[in-house]
Amino acid sequence: MRRGLVIVNTGDGKGKTTAALGVLFRAWGRDFNVRMFQFIKHSTARFGEHRAAERIGLPIESLGDGFTWLSKDMDETTALAVAQWERCKQAILAGEEDLIVLDEFTYAMHYEWVAVSDVIETLKQRPEAMHVIITGRYAPQELIDYADLVTEMTLIKHPFEDQGIKAQPGIEF
Amino acid sequence: MRRGLVIVNTGDGKGKTTAALGVLFRAWGRDFNVRMFQFIKHSTARFGEHRAAERIGLPIESLGDGFTWLSKDMDETTALAVAQWERCKQAILAGEEDLIVLDEFTYAMHYEWVAVSDVIETLKQRPEAMHVIITGRYAPQELIDYADLVTEMTLIKHPFEDQGIKAQPGIEF
Repeated sequence: MRRGLVIVNTGDGKGKTTAALGVLFRAWGRDFNVRMFQFIKHSTARFGEHRAAERIGLPIESLGDGFTWLSKDMDETTALAVAQWERCKQAILAGEEDLIVLDEFTYAMHYEWVAVSDVIETLKQRPEAMHVIITGRYAPQELIDYADLVTEMTLIKHPFEDQGIKAQPGIEF
Repeated sequence: MRRGLVIVNTGDGKGKTTAALGVLFRAWGRDFNVRMFQFIKHSTARFGEHRAAERIGLPIESLGDGFTWLSKDMDETTALAVAQWERCKQAILAGEEDLIVLDEFTYAMHYEWVAVSDVIETLKQRPEAMHVIITGRYAPQELIDYADLVTEMTLIKHPFEDQGIKAQPGIEF
């Protein structure tokens, strides 16, 4: 019955990370060992999900420097992403979790800081029952081809863009 | 700064409910008062999210009878959906929560068990800072027009349909 899935949440819309958080929460409810690695958010970020995760003892590990594709210090950004991927890789191969989330990891592949082939090779070597969720825009086609479940989140309407509403704490972060 | 949003997660893809759960989790991390009403899942359902929610004292109230549009007992189904909506309405108007999730509520509107106009009228009367998330396929256009943030989840690839893999506990439910 247990068959580990590779799940990708991609697209320009909202809900990619929160859907992964929802699955994490659900899996935690079933006593799964779960672990989340974040690639974009700054390692000192204390957003709603970090506070909630801390409270229930669920590890969310951020190693990003809060970079974007506009980062002025691209070498540092690349190095951090590569280092974070190495940690993820170790966790995937160690096989101690039932579910690992690589949040906003697609960017690292999209910008070629991490080779998609390395990611797929690592996923192939994971324990059979381990689920892995990867989120972020621009999921590489090779990853989509390999994944079991791929969802695209599409923006239909957004309060920031349409109405100039500020990001809401507890909802957006 | 605080401005309550009406958020709709719709479309045929996965992630509508889990994205709402993720926001719920995030909001809970910020000490928001949160509450979730489910419309489809049977009131005795003990899925991952129910176990997790119970564990952290987060109320998820299911009143559905596990109906689908193939329900053989449609009157009962309609009555349950209407009763559940009345409870939601009271909660929305009472205004004690910062975030209320109406999970899979779109079906009740789509099948005309609940009038969209009644829903929008109720949302208009809610406290200014209250966020409401509504999930489910077939979100009525009138609701989309009224909402602040609308995301469509689109299925790109699904293991059930493509590979005949069974639903995975902790991931799918």
